[in-house]
Amino acid sequence: MTARTSRGRRPGAPDTRAEVLAAARTSFAEKGFRGTTIRAVAASAGVDPALVHHYFGTKDDLFVAALQIPVDPRAVLAPVVAAGPDGAGERLLRTLLSVWDDPELRPGLVALVRSLMSDDGAGLVRDGFIPVVVGPVLAGLVPDRPEVRIPLVASQVIGIILGRYVVALPPLAQMPAEDLVARVGPTLQRYLTGDLP
Amino acid sequence: MTARTSRGRRPGAPDTRAEVLAAARTSFAEKGFRGTTIRAVAASAGVDPALVHHYFGTKDDLFVAALQIPVDPRAVLAPVVAAGPDGAGERLLRTLLSVWDDPELRPGLVALVRSLMSDDGAGLVRDGFIPVVVGPVLAGLVPDRPEVRIPLVASQVIGIILGRYVVALPPLAQMPAEDLVARVGPTLQRYLTGDLP
Repeated sequence: MTARTSRGRRPGAPDTRAEVLAAARTSFAEKGFRGTTIRAVAASAGVDPALVHHYFGTKDDLFVAALQIPVDPRAVLAPVVAAGPDGAGERLLRTLLSVWDDPELRPGLVALVRSLMSDDGAGLVRDGFIPVVVGPVLAGLVPDRPEVRIPLVASQVIGIILGRYVVALPPLAQMPAEDLVARVGPTLQRYLTGDLP
Repeated sequence: MTARTSRGRRPGAPDTRAEVLAAARTSFAEKGFRGTTIRAVAASAGVDPALVHHYFGTKDDLFVAALQIPVDPRAVLAPVVAAGPDGAGERLLRTLLSVWDDPELRPGLVALVRSLMSDDGAGLVRDGFIPVVVGPVLAGLVPDRPEVRIPLVASQVIGIILGRYVVALPPLAQMPAEDLVARVGPTLQRYLTGDLP
Protein backbone atom coordinates (compact mmCIF):
# COMPACT_ATOMS: atom_id res chain seq x y z
CA MET A 1 0.00 0.00 0.00
CA THR A 2 3.02 2.29 0.36
CA ALA A 3 3.89 4.46 -2.63
CA ARG A 4 7.43 3.90 -3.86
CA THR A 5 9.49 6.23 -5.99
CA SER A 6 11.09 4.83 -9.12
CA ARG A 7 14.42 5.07 -7.31
CA GLY A 8 13.30 2.30 -4.99
CA ARG A 9 14.22 2.09 -1.34
CA ARG A 10 17.52 2.21 0.49
CA PRO A 11 18.04 1.42 4.17
CA GLY A 12 18.10 4.66 6.08
CA ALA A 13 16.34 6.58 3.33
CA PRO A 14 13.71 9.13 4.41
CA ASP A 15 10.82 6.72 3.83
CA THR A 16 12.40 4.19 6.17
CA ARG A 17 12.28 6.74 8.95
CA ALA A 18 8.64 7.47 8.12
CA GLU A 19 7.84 3.77 8.15
CA VAL A 20 9.44 3.29 11.55
CA LEU A 21 7.42 6.23 12.85
CA ALA A 22 4.20 4.82 11.36
CA ALA A 23 4.92 1.44 12.94
CA ALA A 24 5.57 3.14 16.28
CA ARG A 25 2.33 5.13 16.10
CA THR A 26 0.37 1.96 15.35
CA SER A 27 2.03 0.06 18.17
CA PHE A 28 1.58 2.84 20.78
CA ALA A 29 -2.07 3.20 19.76
CA GLU A 30 -2.83 -0.52 19.73
CA LYS A 31 -0.61 -1.82 22.52
CA GLY A 32 -0.15 1.29 24.63
CA PHE A 33 3.10 2.75 25.91
CA ARG A 34 4.06 -0.16 28.11
CA GLY A 35 3.12 -2.77 25.51
CA THR A 36 5.37 -1.22 22.87
CA THR A 37 9.03 -2.21 22.46
CA ILE A 38 11.73 -0.87 20.17
CA ARG A 39 12.34 -4.43 19.03
CA ALA A 40 8.70 -4.97 17.98
CA VAL A 41 8.50 -1.60 16.23
CA ALA A 42 11.68 -2.45 14.33
CA ALA A 43 10.31 -5.86 13.32
CA SER A 44 7.05 -4.31 12.17
CA ALA A 45 8.92 -1.80 10.02
CA GLY A 46 11.33 -4.45 8.73
CA VAL A 47 14.47 -2.78 10.06
CA ASP A 48 17.11 -3.47 12.68
CA PRO A 49 16.37 -2.19 16.21
CA ALA A 50 19.66 -0.29 16.08
CA LEU A 51 18.23 1.79 13.25
CA VAL A 52 15.23 2.75 15.38
CA HIS A 53 17.58 3.86 18.14
CA HIS A 54 19.67 5.72 15.58
CA TYR A 55 16.68 7.63 14.25
CA PHE A 56 14.72 8.24 17.42
CA GLY A 57 16.84 7.56 20.50
CA THR A 58 15.16 5.90 23.47
CA LYS A 59 11.64 4.48 23.68
CA ASP A 60 10.62 7.71 25.45
CA ASP A 61 12.00 9.72 22.53
CA LEU A 62 10.23 7.47 20.04
CA PHE A 63 6.99 8.00 21.95
CA VAL A 64 7.37 11.79 21.84
CA ALA A 65 8.10 11.58 18.09
CA ALA A 66 5.08 9.30 17.55
CA LEU A 67 2.80 11.81 19.27
CA GLN A 68 3.87 14.27 16.55
CA ILE A 69 3.84 17.13 19.00
CA PRO A 70 5.29 20.22 17.35
CA VAL A 71 7.57 20.78 20.34
CA ASP A 72 9.22 18.39 22.78
CA PRO A 73 7.52 19.06 26.13
CA ARG A 74 10.63 17.95 27.98
CA ALA A 75 12.65 20.71 26.32
CA VAL A 76 9.89 23.25 26.96
CA LEU A 77 9.65 22.36 30.65
CA ALA A 78 13.36 22.07 31.39
CA PRO A 79 13.98 25.82 31.97
CA VAL A 80 10.85 26.05 34.14
CA VAL A 81 12.26 23.36 36.38
CA ALA A 82 15.81 24.69 36.27
CA ALA A 83 14.67 28.00 37.79
CA GLY A 84 13.57 26.19 40.94
CA PRO A 85 10.34 25.83 42.90
CA ASP A 86 9.76 29.51 43.82
CA GLY A 87 7.23 30.92 41.38
CA ALA A 88 7.22 27.70 39.40
CA GLY A 89 3.42 27.62 39.16
CA GLU A 90 3.30 30.91 37.32
CA ARG A 91 6.34 30.10 35.19
CA LEU A 92 4.92 26.73 34.22
CA LEU A 93 1.63 28.21 33.08
CA ARG A 94 3.30 31.15 31.31
CA THR A 95 5.51 28.73 29.39
CA LEU A 96 2.63 26.46 28.38
CA LEU A 97 0.51 29.38 27.24
CA SER A 98 3.37 30.76 25.16
CA VAL A 99 3.53 27.48 23.26
CA TRP A 100 -0.24 27.09 22.88
CA ASP A 101 -0.81 30.75 21.99
CA ASP A 102 1.54 30.37 19.00
CA PRO A 103 -0.84 30.31 16.02
CA GLU A 104 1.47 28.02 14.08
CA LEU A 105 1.55 25.40 16.82
CA ARG A 106 -2.02 25.54 18.05
CA PRO A 107 -3.91 23.60 15.33
CA GLY A 108 -1.63 20.59 15.71
CA LEU A 109 -1.88 20.73 19.49
CA VAL A 110 -5.68 20.95 19.46
CA ALA A 111 -5.87 17.97 17.09
CA LEU A 112 -3.52 16.06 19.35
CA VAL A 113 -5.58 16.76 22.46
CA ARG A 114 -8.76 15.66 20.71
CA SER A 115 -7.12 12.41 19.62
CA LEU A 116 -5.95 11.82 23.18
CA MET A 117 -9.55 11.87 24.41
CA SER A 118 -10.30 8.63 22.53
CA ASP A 119 -9.93 5.30 24.32
CA ASP A 120 -6.54 4.56 22.78
CA GLY A 121 -5.39 8.13 23.24
CA ALA A 122 -6.37 8.20 26.90
CA GLY A 123 -4.14 5.18 27.47
CA LEU A 124 -1.20 7.01 25.92
CA VAL A 125 -1.73 10.00 28.23
CA ARG A 126 -2.17 7.75 31.25
CA ASP A 127 0.71 5.33 30.65
CA GLY A 128 3.09 7.43 28.58
CA PHE A 129 2.65 11.16 28.37
CA ILE A 130 2.15 12.04 32.03
CA PRO A 131 4.31 9.43 33.78
CA VAL A 132 7.09 9.14 31.21
CA VAL A 133 7.35 12.45 29.36
CA VAL A 134 6.10 15.18 31.70
CA GLY A 135 6.21 13.61 35.15
CA PRO A 136 9.95 12.97 35.48
CA VAL A 137 10.75 16.55 34.44
CA LEU A 138 8.27 18.20 36.82
CA ALA A 139 9.30 15.86 39.63
CA GLY A 140 12.39 18.06 39.96
CA LEU A 141 10.16 20.81 41.37
CA VAL A 142 8.20 19.05 44.10
CA PRO A 143 9.29 18.47 47.68
CA ASP A 144 7.48 15.17 48.12
CA ARG A 145 4.77 12.87 46.73
CA PRO A 146 5.24 13.61 43.01
CA GLU A 147 2.75 10.81 42.29
CA VAL A 148 0.03 12.96 43.91
CA ARG A 149 1.21 16.47 43.05
CA ILE A 150 1.89 16.03 39.35
CA PRO A 151 -1.51 14.54 38.43
CA LEU A 152 -3.14 17.46 40.28
CA VAL A 153 -1.04 19.89 38.23
CA ALA A 154 -2.02 17.93 35.13
CA SER A 155 -5.72 18.20 36.03
CA GLN A 156 -5.60 22.01 36.14
CA VAL A 157 -3.40 22.32 33.07
CA ILE A 158 -5.65 19.97 31.06
CA GLY A 159 -8.67 21.99 32.12
CA ILE A 160 -7.08 25.27 31.05
CA ILE A 161 -5.99 23.84 27.70
CA LEU A 162 -9.45 22.46 27.02
CA GLY A 163 -11.22 25.59 28.20
CA ARG A 164 -8.97 28.08 26.41
CA TYR A 165 -8.10 26.23 23.20
CA VAL A 166 -10.50 23.33 22.54
CA VAL A 167 -13.81 24.59 23.90
CA ALA A 168 -12.73 28.27 23.56
CA LEU A 169 -14.83 29.15 26.59
CA PRO A 170 -15.18 32.89 27.14
CA PRO A 171 -13.36 34.58 28.71
CA LEU A 172 -10.65 31.91 29.12
CA ALA A 173 -10.06 31.96 25.37
CA GLN A 174 -9.64 35.74 25.21
CA MET A 175 -7.97 36.40 28.58
CA PRO A 176 -4.49 37.94 28.35
CA ALA A 177 -1.98 35.26 29.23
CA GLU A 178 -0.67 37.23 32.21
CA ASP A 179 -4.18 37.52 33.70
CA LEU A 180 -4.58 33.78 33.45
CA VAL A 181 -1.12 33.27 34.94
CA ALA A 182 -2.01 35.51 37.91
CA ARG A 183 -5.32 33.72 38.50
CA VAL A 184 -4.29 30.09 37.96
CA GLY A 185 -0.56 30.19 38.80
CA PRO A 186 -1.25 30.00 42.57
CA THR A 187 -3.26 26.81 42.02
CA LEU A 188 -0.34 25.17 40.27
CA GLN A 189 2.09 26.45 42.90
CA ARG A 190 0.00 24.94 45.69
CA TYR A 191 -0.18 21.59 43.88
CA LEU A 192 3.57 21.66 43.23
CA THR A 193 4.93 22.86 46.56
CA GLY A 194 2.11 23.79 48.95
CA ASP A 195 0.81 21.97 52.01
CA LEU A 196 -1.46 19.28 50.64
CA PRO A 197 -3.52 16.91 52.76
CA MET B 1 -36.49 5.80 8.00
CA THR B 2 -38.29 5.70 11.35
CA ALA B 3 -39.67 2.35 12.41
CA ARG B 4 -43.39 2.47 13.09
CA THR B 5 -45.41 0.10 15.18
CA SER B 6 -48.50 -1.45 13.67
CA ARG B 7 -50.55 0.80 15.91
CA GLY B 8 -49.45 3.84 13.89
CA ARG B 9 -48.77 7.26 15.32
CA ARG B 10 -50.87 9.61 17.37
CA PRO B 11 -50.01 13.23 18.22
CA GLY B 12 -48.36 13.26 21.62
CA ALA B 13 -47.54 9.58 21.45
CA PRO B 14 -44.13 8.54 22.78
CA ASP B 15 -42.52 8.54 19.35
CA THR B 16 -43.54 12.17 18.83
CA ARG B 17 -41.59 13.11 21.92
CA ALA B 18 -38.59 11.14 20.64
CA GLU B 19 -38.83 12.87 17.26
CA VAL B 20 -38.87 16.31 18.88
CA LEU B 21 -35.83 15.33 20.90
CA ALA B 22 -34.03 14.04 17.79
CA ALA B 23 -34.85 17.28 15.94
CA ALA B 24 -33.53 19.26 18.91
CA ARG B 25 -30.29 17.26 19.06
CA THR B 26 -29.72 17.80 15.34
CA SER B 27 -30.42 21.52 15.62
CA PHE B 28 -28.21 22.08 18.67
CA ALA B 29 -25.38 20.14 16.99
CA GLU B 30 -25.67 21.87 13.62
CA LYS B 31 -26.72 25.38 14.61
CA GLY B 32 -25.43 25.62 18.16
CA PHE B 33 -27.31 26.69 21.24
CA ARG B 34 -27.96 30.26 20.15
CA GLY B 35 -28.92 29.26 16.60
CA THR B 36 -31.61 26.86 17.81
CA THR B 37 -35.21 27.96 18.42
CA ILE B 38 -38.18 26.08 19.80
CA ARG B 39 -40.10 27.15 16.70
CA ALA B 40 -37.54 25.67 14.29
CA VAL B 41 -37.28 22.43 16.28
CA ALA B 42 -41.07 22.12 16.22
CA ALA B 43 -41.18 22.73 12.48
CA SER B 44 -38.46 20.18 11.89
CA ALA B 45 -40.38 17.58 13.90
CA GLY B 46 -43.69 18.52 12.27
CA VAL B 47 -45.40 19.52 15.51
CA ASP B 48 -46.74 22.68 17.10
CA PRO B 49 -44.25 24.72 19.19
CA ALA B 50 -46.67 24.46 22.10
CA LEU B 51 -46.14 20.70 22.09
CA VAL B 52 -42.37 21.20 22.40
CA HIS B 53 -42.93 23.46 25.40
CA HIS B 54 -45.39 20.94 26.82
CA TYR B 55 -42.89 18.09 26.59
CA PHE B 56 -39.67 19.88 27.46
CA GLY B 57 -40.35 23.30 29.01
CA THR B 58 -38.02 26.14 28.07
CA LYS B 59 -35.24 26.13 25.47
CA ASP B 60 -32.78 25.65 28.34
CA ASP B 61 -34.72 22.58 29.46
CA LEU B 62 -34.85 21.26 25.90
CA PHE B 63 -31.08 21.72 25.67
CA VAL B 64 -30.50 19.75 28.88
CA ALA B 65 -32.81 17.00 27.57
CA ALA B 66 -31.00 16.98 24.21
CA LEU B 67 -27.66 16.48 25.93
CA GLN B 68 -29.14 13.25 27.35
CA ILE B 69 -27.32 13.75 30.61
CA PRO B 70 -28.48 11.16 33.11
CA VAL B 71 -29.04 13.88 35.71
CA ASP B 72 -30.02 17.53 35.43
CA PRO B 73 -26.95 19.48 36.54
CA ARG B 74 -29.13 22.36 37.70
CA ALA B 75 -30.89 20.07 40.16
CA VAL B 76 -27.59 18.55 41.29
CA LEU B 77 -26.02 21.96 41.90
CA ALA B 78 -29.00 23.66 43.55
CA PRO B 79 -28.33 22.33 47.09
CA VAL B 80 -24.62 23.19 46.79
CA VAL B 81 -25.57 26.77 46.08
CA ALA B 82 -28.37 26.89 48.64
CA ALA B 83 -25.91 26.10 51.45
CA GLY B 84 -24.05 29.34 50.71
CA PRO B 85 -20.50 30.29 49.81
CA ASP B 86 -18.69 29.00 52.91
CA GLY B 87 -17.17 25.64 52.02
CA ALA B 88 -18.82 25.71 48.61
CA GLY B 89 -15.65 24.60 46.82
CA GLU B 90 -15.50 21.34 48.74
CA ARG B 91 -19.27 20.78 48.56
CA LEU B 92 -19.29 21.40 44.82
CA LEU B 93 -16.55 18.88 44.16
CA ARG B 94 -18.02 16.32 46.59
CA THR B 95 -21.37 16.56 44.83
CA LEU B 96 -19.89 16.23 41.34
CA LEU B 97 -17.79 13.24 42.38
CA SER B 98 -20.83 11.54 43.92
CA VAL B 99 -22.61 11.73 40.55
CA TRP B 100 -19.59 10.67 38.49
CA ASP B 101 -18.57 7.91 40.88
CA ASP B 102 -21.99 6.26 40.42
CA PRO B 103 -21.22 3.26 38.18
CA GLU B 104 -24.64 3.46 36.56
CA LEU B 105 -24.17 7.08 35.52
CA ARG B 106 -20.52 7.11 34.57
CA PRO B 107 -20.54 5.41 31.11
CA GLY B 108 -23.10 7.87 29.80
CA LEU B 109 -21.24 10.83 31.28
CA VAL B 110 -17.90 9.74 29.81
CA ALA B 111 -19.50 9.30 26.39
CA LEU B 112 -21.05 12.74 26.72
CA VAL B 113 -17.75 14.39 27.62
CA ARG B 114 -16.02 12.74 24.66
CA SER B 115 -18.73 13.97 22.30
CA LEU B 116 -18.36 17.47 23.72
CA MET B 117 -14.70 17.54 22.68
CA SER B 118 -15.67 17.50 18.98
CA ASP B 119 -16.06 20.81 17.14
CA ASP B 120 -19.86 20.78 17.39
CA GLY B 121 -19.76 19.59 20.96
CA ALA B 122 -17.30 22.28 22.03
CA GLY B 123 -19.76 24.87 20.75
CA LEU B 124 -22.50 23.39 22.89
CA VAL B 125 -20.31 23.59 26.00
CA ARG B 126 -19.19 27.12 25.16
CA ASP B 127 -22.55 28.60 24.19
CA GLY B 128 -24.97 26.43 26.10
CA PHE B 129 -23.75 24.20 28.87
CA ILE B 130 -21.52 26.59 30.81
CA PRO B 131 -23.30 29.96 30.28
CA VAL B 132 -26.89 28.68 30.25
CA VAL B 133 -27.06 25.52 32.33
CA VAL B 134 -24.30 25.69 34.93
CA GLY B 135 -23.31 29.34 35.05
CA PRO B 136 -26.56 30.88 36.27
CA VAL B 137 -26.80 28.37 39.12
CA LEU B 138 -23.23 28.84 40.32
CA ALA B 139 -23.50 32.60 39.97
CA GLY B 140 -25.49 32.48 43.20
CA LEU B 141 -22.26 31.65 45.04
CA VAL B 142 -19.84 34.29 43.83
CA PRO B 143 -19.38 37.81 45.22
CA ASP B 144 -18.43 39.42 41.90
CA ARG B 145 -17.27 38.80 38.33
CA PRO B 146 -19.09 35.51 37.71
CA GLU B 147 -17.95 35.76 34.07
CA VAL B 148 -14.36 35.26 35.26
CA ARG B 149 -14.87 33.03 38.31
CA ILE B 150 -17.15 30.41 36.81
CA PRO B 151 -14.97 29.60 33.78
CA LEU B 152 -12.02 29.18 36.17
CA VAL B 153 -14.12 26.76 38.25
CA ALA B 154 -15.09 25.01 35.03
CA SER B 155 -11.44 24.66 34.01
CA GLN B 156 -10.52 22.80 37.20
CA VAL B 157 -13.69 20.69 37.20
CA ILE B 158 -13.20 19.70 33.56
CA GLY B 159 -9.60 18.75 34.30
CA ILE B 160 -10.61 16.57 37.25
CA ILE B 161 -13.36 14.86 35.24
CA LEU B 162 -11.00 14.15 32.36
CA GLY B 163 -8.17 13.04 34.63
CA ARG B 164 -10.26 10.84 36.91
CA TYR B 165 -12.85 9.41 34.54
CA VAL B 166 -11.80 9.78 30.88
CA VAL B 167 -8.02 9.38 31.01
CA ALA B 168 -8.16 7.47 34.34
CA LEU B 169 -4.82 8.94 35.34
CA PRO B 170 -3.34 7.36 38.46
CA PRO B 171 -3.83 8.22 41.23
CA LEU B 172 -6.68 10.62 40.37
CA ALA B 173 -8.78 7.70 39.19
CA GLN B 174 -8.26 5.69 42.39
CA MET B 175 -8.09 8.52 44.95
CA PRO B 176 -10.82 8.38 47.61
CA ALA B 177 -13.30 11.13 46.86
CA GLU B 178 -12.66 12.86 50.19
CA ASP B 179 -8.91 13.05 49.51
CA LEU B 180 -9.60 14.71 46.19
CA VAL B 181 -12.10 17.06 47.84
CA ALA B 182 -9.50 18.08 50.44
CA ARG B 183 -6.83 18.67 47.80
CA VAL B 184 -8.86 20.39 45.07
CA GLY B 185 -11.69 21.95 47.06
CA PRO B 186 -9.51 24.94 48.09
CA THR B 187 -8.81 25.66 44.41
CA LEU B 188 -12.52 25.83 43.65
CA GLN B 189 -13.17 27.91 46.76
CA ARG B 190 -10.55 30.45 45.71
CA TYR B 191 -12.01 30.68 42.21
CA LEU B 192 -15.53 31.06 43.62
CA THR B 193 -14.99 33.49 46.48
CA GLY B 194 -11.27 34.25 46.97
CA ASP B 195 -9.29 37.36 46.10
CA LEU B 196 -8.59 37.08 42.41
CA PRO B 197 -6.49 39.51 40.38
